[in-house]
Amino acid sequence: MFESAEIGHAIAKETYDAEVPALREALLDAQFELHEQAGRQIIVLINGVEGAGKGETVKLLNEWMDPRFIEVRTFDSQTDEELAHPTAWRYWRQLPAKGKMGIFFGNWYSQMLQGRVHGLFKDAVLDQAINGSERLEKMLCDEGAVIFKFWFHLSKQQMKSRLKSLKDDPLHSWRISPLDWQQSKTYDKFVRFGERVLRRTSRDYAPWHVIEGVDPYYRSLTVGRLLLEGLQTALKTPHTASTVVTVAPLPTTHGDVTLLSNLDMTLSLNKDDYEEQLITEQARLSGNIRDKRMRGHALVAVFEGNDAAGKGGAIRRVAAALDPRHYNIVPIAAPSQDELAQPYLWRFWRQIPPKGKFTIFDRSWYGRVLVERVEGFCREADWLRAYGEINDFEEQLTDSGIVVVKFWLAIDEDTQLERFQAREKIPFKRYKITDDDWRNRAKWPQYRDAICDMVDRTSTEIAPWTLIEANDKRWARVKVLRTLNNALEAAFAKDKKK
Amino acid sequence: MFESAEIGHAIAKETYDAEVPALREALLDAQFELHEQAGRQIIVLINGVEGAGKGETVKLLNEWMDPRFIEVRTFDSQTDEELAHPTAWRYWRQLPAKGKMGIFFGNWYSQMLQGRVHGLFKDAVLDQAINGSERLEKMLCDEGAVIFKFWFHLSKQQMKSRLKSLKDDPLHSWRISPLDWQQSKTYDKFVRFGERVLRRTSRDYAPWHVIEGVDPYYRSLTVGRLLLEGLQTALKTPHTASTVVTVAPLPTTHGDVTLLSNLDMTLSLNKDDYEEQLITEQARLSGNIRDKRMRGHALVAVFEGNDAAGKGGAIRRVAAALDPRHYNIVPIAAPSQDELAQPYLWRFWRQIPPKGKFTIFDRSWYGRVLVERVEGFCREADWLRAYGEINDFEEQLTDSGIVVVKFWLAIDEDTQLERFQAREKIPFKRYKITDDDWRNRAKWPQYRDAICDMVDRTSTEIAPWTLIEANDKRWARVKVLRTLNNALEAAFAKDKKK
Repeated sequence: MFESAEIGHAIAKETYDAEVPALREALLDAQFELHEQAGRQIIVLINGVEGAGKGETVKLLNEWMDPRFIEVRTFDSQTDEELAHPTAWRYWRQLPAKGKMGIFFGNWYSQMLQGRVHGLFKDAVLDQAINGSERLEKMLCDEGAVIFKFWFHLSKQQMKSRLKSLKDDPLHSWRISPLDWQQSKTYDKFVRFGERVLRRTSRDYAPWHVIEGVDPYYRSLTVGRLLLEGLQTALKTPHTASTVVTVAPLPTTHGDVTLLSNLDMTLSLNKDDYEEQLITEQARLSGNIRDKRMRGHALVAVFEGNDAAGKGGAIRRVAAALDPRHYNIVPIAAPSQDELAQPYLWRFWRQIPPKGKFTIFDRSWYGRVLVERVEGFCREADWLRAYGEINDFEEQLTDSGIVVVKFWLAIDEDTQLERFQAREKIPFKRYKITDDDWRNRAKWPQYRDAICDMVDRTSTEIAPWTLIEANDKRWARVKVLRTLNNALEAAFAKDKKK
Repeated sequence: MFESAEIGHAIAKETYDAEVPALREALLDAQFELHEQAGRQIIVLINGVEGAGKGETVKLLNEWMDPRFIEVRTFDSQTDEELAHPTAWRYWRQLPAKGKMGIFFGNWYSQMLQGRVHGLFKDAVLDQAINGSERLEKMLCDEGAVIFKFWFHLSKQQMKSRLKSLKDDPLHSWRISPLDWQQSKTYDKFVRFGERVLRRTSRDYAPWHVIEGVDPYYRSLTVGRLLLEGLQTALKTPHTASTVVTVAPLPTTHGDVTLLSNLDMTLSLNKDDYEEQLITEQARLSGNIRDKRMRGHALVAVFEGNDAAGKGGAIRRVAAALDPRHYNIVPIAAPSQDELAQPYLWRFWRQIPPKGKFTIFDRSWYGRVLVERVEGFCREADWLRAYGEINDFEEQLTDSGIVVVKFWLAIDEDTQLERFQAREKIPFKRYKITDDDWRNRAKWPQYRDAICDMVDRTSTEIAPWTLIEANDKRWARVKVLRTLNNALEAAFAKDKKK
């Protein structure tokens, strides 16, 4: 969930300076028009890691837009009056009126996260709080509100150096509060519980946007663009019908660093290393699957990837390690009649392995947010809600002891072209390349956005995505096997702790 | 929530015999048409108290409709295979295909209720299960499913006599399973937790229908009518757009017993008894409000009622007992500009008392499901979702220690007419009667339905409705005061237990 926000997104000062004037003007326009309509209230929630630029961004938004229509609210410790009322009372009394924007700097999420991080309660109570905020937000959206939820993020390393550089600078050291230092100690907990909160409360009507906070130009421009996109969608959606406004993720623009562009595609293995490591990992997997601790678990591996990225070959190397009675390969093609007569997750539920078994999905439920999204086989509202539904689904799997491992096999455009051409030349491989493959290839940028959004929104602590640099097939196969082994052994180690 | 299902609803055999043929034909038609369209799956959940006719009703539905399109699923203890999979797997594998109806006899609700009743887990875990089923049902509805949730109910007394009469009848005694006897012992727990589950999972897209189970004609006809109503709505709602189908409650038909018709409107107090009891209860209230245990609580009293039912007079008798610094009266009229610029619950959140204080709402948030529903000031979808939103709201109040007491002051049509006419004659009371009052009176049947639905859906264990027989003002005033006192003292007694 935070992977994309730890890769060093940055925007050059020139780009920033060139883009800001038009963005500001458009934001002001949208703001005025919303105020004229007075049909929707805009609620902006600011959360995330200390030092990631939350305060600076809010300050900037107030400079960019007309502050008369913005109300910034901070919620620190509860006042006497607030303590004498139900918890939500403090938020209700600060709601912006329709046509205005309320920036909630600290809010119900900060409150529940602080409580959980400091051990005031356990997960079950955190889940009750999560559920309460879902109900609140759903109701607000049904009543016409538009909710933006921003999580400003830094990796642990980034946060530490940010705090350090502020401390060393006499002009800025006052900016660091004791809270900041405390959070640097509780970073791991904070991010782990934050991940649980984001996973469960990122819904189509009020999704989270995770913003990498290192570069001020990047974070400001991204927040500004998302706000603009959302406000313009809101203006287009009639508020009289209480239609819920959904904000789709922003498309990648030229020059953006993405998870995919960030991969080191030169990673490779020579033949000797490959053969040695492959055999080692295969033996390890074979042992793990037959381990008696496997009785309390099952293994689900999801293989997704670019066409011709080598999914089939990787799957064969996994299968080669195992007794056929222990695993099952499920190839996912277009749904059958029976499958079309059910919710889209049904065909996958049917194939979930019982304890002790291993199922390999050759393509998966992620088709919903990849091919179905890009090809328009389902509506935007459908794939937007699918992220939350898929997270719910995978949480049910992991709750029951299933280890879920998800692979994206990535190759670059040139490598794909080479492989397509090679396939066309080899008679027995020609069946592998169809017109569809060429058509998909033409939509490379749309697929790239879909893939990055998918990883951002469904790579969770309980079921993370592993991106595989697959230009070199040997490297890819060994990394796949090793990841499976690490995941199983981590699950076994956790059992021990209980 | 169960009040309406404990008043002895019954339908005469002749009425039943006269209505069933047309109902069956219409059900068959709807069933075929749904099967033709194959766009939606119909899921019927059967829950409730043992002995309330669950089995008989399912059997009957199979006779009435075409059993080829109905799949009845029972879920008892989990099989080995089910235990080796995630909890929801057993339900997914049994989902009916689009165009078919799946009757889930025993389902996720039975599972969580059994677990909670037998102490396998506490409320926080029950709430996690509740939240899980909400997510499941929301997703199914977004995917086009129509979900009917029936809770078959009997009062404790009714259940005991039902079981006894079956036992004494040699032809039927085999029908009673050990589970039935066990449930008669755990009745109170079962109904209490059932109430929590119903309160939290009755949502506009999948509301609960509570069916009184004593009279077989009544329960069969009611379930049949609700199914027909829902199926016909589903047929009218295009399934291609994944529009969620909402099923409004059935209107009362001539001769129906309702909570209102069931009140004994002759209840009255003579002058002496009244004066004595009034003073006693006022002194008691004054003591309770000044009690030091009040520091951990607040009191919210909601006054709703027919026009001219005597709300004002009752409120004055309450206020007369108290120091003006201790209470606050909030009259609710049409919303102001400021209030219109917020979600409808906002104006009430503002007026929630802090600990130690008492707020009297003269009309309230229930306007949403009364006047706004009847007069069409909001859309059906809005008032249908309001029941759940209001229950959430009141749960937040009670969770923070607020005692919520809700009064419906009921008078009959004749008494209202007398009072209207009397008011018109007395110059200083003339302002109390307007054209609006006469217009509302003309909509008596619509208001009756709205009132009964409101009580059915929002009278909860944590914030029950008290219906006040108000033809006699003395009786009404004393009952109001006594109810407030009982509620406060019950809250104080609970504190002690903690």
